[in-house]
Amino acid sequence: MQIIEILKTEPRNQKVEVKGWVRTKRGQSALSFVSINDGSTIHSIQAVVDGENVPEEVMKKVTCGACISVKGELVASSGSGQNVEVLAEEILIYGEADETFPIQPKKHSLEFLREKAHLRFRTSTFSAIFRVRHHLSHAVHQFFHEQNFFYLHTPIITASDAEGAGEMFRVTTFEANKAPVTETGEVDFSEDFFGKETSLTVSGQLEGELGALALSRIYTFGPTFRAENSNTTRHLAEFWMIEPEMAFFELKENMDLAEQFVKYVIGSVMENCKDDLAFLDNRFNQENKTKPQNERSEHTLIEKLNFVLENEFARITYTEAVDILLQSKPHKKKKFKFPVEWGIDLQSEHERYLVEKHFQKPVIITNYPKDIKAFYMKQNDDGKTVAAMDVLFPGIGEMIGGSQREENLDKLKNRVHEMGIEEESLWWYLETRKYGTAPHAGFGLGFERLVQFVTGMGNIRDVIAFPRTPGNVEF
Amino acid sequence: MQIIEILKTEPRNQKVEVKGWVRTKRGQSALSFVSINDGSTIHSIQAVVDGENVPEEVMKKVTCGACISVKGELVASSGSGQNVEVLAEEILIYGEADETFPIQPKKHSLEFLREKAHLRFRTSTFSAIFRVRHHLSHAVHQFFHEQNFFYLHTPIITASDAEGAGEMFRVTTFEANKAPVTETGEVDFSEDFFGKETSLTVSGQLEGELGALALSRIYTFGPTFRAENSNTTRHLAEFWMIEPEMAFFELKENMDLAEQFVKYVIGSVMENCKDDLAFLDNRFNQENKTKPQNERSEHTLIEKLNFVLENEFARITYTEAVDILLQSKPHKKKKFKFPVEWGIDLQSEHERYLVEKHFQKPVIITNYPKDIKAFYMKQNDDGKTVAAMDVLFPGIGEMIGGSQREENLDKLKNRVHEMGIEEESLWWYLETRKYGTAPHAGFGLGFERLVQFVTGMGNIRDVIAFPRTPGNVEF
Repeated sequence: MQIIEILKTEPRNQKVEVKGWVRTKRGQSALSFVSINDGSTIHSIQAVVDGENVPEEVMKKVTCGACISVKGELVASSGSGQNVEVLAEEILIYGEADETFPIQPKKHSLEFLREKAHLRFRTSTFSAIFRVRHHLSHAVHQFFHEQNFFYLHTPIITASDAEGAGEMFRVTTFEANKAPVTETGEVDFSEDFFGKETSLTVSGQLEGELGALALSRIYTFGPTFRAENSNTTRHLAEFWMIEPEMAFFELKENMDLAEQFVKYVIGSVMENCKDDLAFLDNRFNQENKTKPQNERSEHTLIEKLNFVLENEFARITYTEAVDILLQSKPHKKKKFKFPVEWGIDLQSEHERYLVEKHFQKPVIITNYPKDIKAFYMKQNDDGKTVAAMDVLFPGIGEMIGGSQREENLDKLKNRVHEMGIEEESLWWYLETRKYGTAPHAGFGLGFERLVQFVTGMGNIRDVIAFPRTPGNVEF
Repeated sequence: MQIIEILKTEPRNQKVEVKGWVRTKRGQSALSFVSINDGSTIHSIQAVVDGENVPEEVMKKVTCGACISVKGELVASSGSGQNVEVLAEEILIYGEADETFPIQPKKHSLEFLREKAHLRFRTSTFSAIFRVRHHLSHAVHQFFHEQNFFYLHTPIITASDAEGAGEMFRVTTFEANKAPVTETGEVDFSEDFFGKETSLTVSGQLEGELGALALSRIYTFGPTFRAENSNTTRHLAEFWMIEPEMAFFELKENMDLAEQFVKYVIGSVMENCKDDLAFLDNRFNQENKTKPQNERSEHTLIEKLNFVLENEFARITYTEAVDILLQSKPHKKKKFKFPVEWGIDLQSEHERYLVEKHFQKPVIITNYPKDIKAFYMKQNDDGKTVAAMDVLFPGIGEMIGGSQREENLDKLKNRVHEMGIEEESLWWYLETRKYGTAPHAGFGLGFERLVQFVTGMGNIRDVIAFPRTPGNVEF
């Protein structure tokens, strides 16, 4: 039985066996208290060890980090902070841990633990994060399943670079600097594994649309990649993305779905991960106190989550957003670093002003200038804007980016040409507009940003098990 | 409302709107019958169109493949094979499809449809396959979630090649043949994106073990890669793998979990995808009749699935398996192409004999010779075998491969050295045996093999949306 189950069991002096890792040991050889955790829950169970029952040479090996099994009676507990504890009769040592075990019971910096990513799951903070991450993933699948979406596995290796979302990693079976060349000295990719130059996908959207234009509603949830030299707290070279695509959805329905989706998954985790969130809330609030006044959050983590659940997201057009910024104090006092005018790509400082100061809640901005958005977005009748939407979150910035997709073949082809994309490379995408095209829409959400928001972790490297960033590929 | 919902609705002459793609149109201009499908279900809905209500120029565009909206009354149907049909009052054409639309209502070969993978979702066969694939995925998550497993996203890009499961794809940001070199003329990987030579993962197992040795039970479900030049009906260069890892599980519990898992997901799909499976069963049985007698299945698809649910898997050791083969008719009559003796890696013909002839049900073979298995498998006391298990399925061969993992640091290090692996490259893996090691076990299941078994599709390229194989990276 796992500790999460044992802790829920009614104690009737029955025999139980607890297996897990030692967090702490207190007391003397005559009577000691061992706290054991198996990762199934944030809570440890306490074993009470009478020196008469367990030999001293065994107890010597019961140290922080050791893996043990404790057999004994389950009894009601008054002192351990739990309802039950185990009166140890027999202890078996599965694996010792000497004093070089890096995760001793004291405060470790997040930076230090990142270098010990193979062991950081054994801390309360990281086990809580990865349990919450699991529950968020599960809620994602649950949400879409309940609404007749089909989970589509779009390809990871691709020969298409049309999406243009960012720099790509090359994939090859050629040895470095040993690719065969043609007579004219060009690299001969026809000899490579796929017979073409290939890369890691930056998005499953284009393939997702193919699915939606037949199955009506699909979603992807898979890894995507950016070969960008960004060493920030918000970027990873490898991250997981969720991308729903829906036939017969226009921009309004797309916004409704995005808002409903975020509220569902956050609500689900608040319901199912109460103990982990209570721990992370406490951690967040402690950390918050150590920050300079102007960087401090006014709200606790739980308050922030509740706030998202309880408020309708603001919905404004890009043009309205620019107007608000032009009327704002920071603009008038020249406090913005980047200038504000219609046509600019909103900068982080602008988004933060809108979300954190002006609206003080999540904001959906729609109908951006077409020149700053991708070729596949539906062109509005004004000839200047596209039916895009970005969902901005306090403290995180862009959580979701999406749009209605251009379903008109001629308009789409025009945009493809204007942006200098080879039509040939997209023949399969364009054919879905040639044969039975339909209005459709979709969005993408970077999963790690969502996990960051829910767990309150400041650095994205702390919400994925083994982060990949420039220069970092350990484990 | 989607067609799956409309078909379940009680007809009371209420107004409905149906959106989807035209499958067929029958009848004359005075009265015609249009069958519409939106991919939410295998079933199409019939629209009855009175020529007086809908202009002829609109009806001309209602052709196979066109996308339309039909508004009208929902009424009880006697003739359409469904309970309800729609009396059309208004038809809107979202997207036309001329006679060049490749998916006309006739029989297409699977090979032809593979070249039209962007449109094959619009056939009954492929929409059924991808709905079943979705439900299987969902059942996978459901099964593990219910048993306190946490979904762990293990890395896709890796610097580790220790798993040795197969040839790897290289990942780089160097341009082909333009990698910088050191003074001695070697490729200078310290200048590459990650500062090291990197590849696409062949398995998330090693990282999964790190999770299990802290959180107790984890599973992965993500893409894995093999750069092998295998052009078969059972191999893909990119495929999705499910890999659970469990602390405190030994070989017996590992087998129990694997059997329980396969039965759960197959049972779940039989419960939730009755209509799609009935269609695929019929397809399988038709195809079966066209095969030469000796390749024909004795059972229908549904019978095969029920058979797995209703029978306990046979469990034998490798040594017992070799004995059975040595006693077998094909061996005595020299019908096996590959010789049988203790120590060989069982060939497909041997596995098929055991599963399809001798036991006639799924078989779990355990305790293989250590020399044909990976370094991380737990060494048995006999010094010759390891606590491995392979689950073999009729018609598919190996569905699952797993083992108890070696938890003893010294034994593990010995094996690492014997197999010529650099200990340095696995420092993080070895440290989990140094600090609080625990008995643990796990297995891997190639998801597409499972989808093949459940859908009865002979070629693995037909159960993944956009297959990647040597020379194939379209879409």
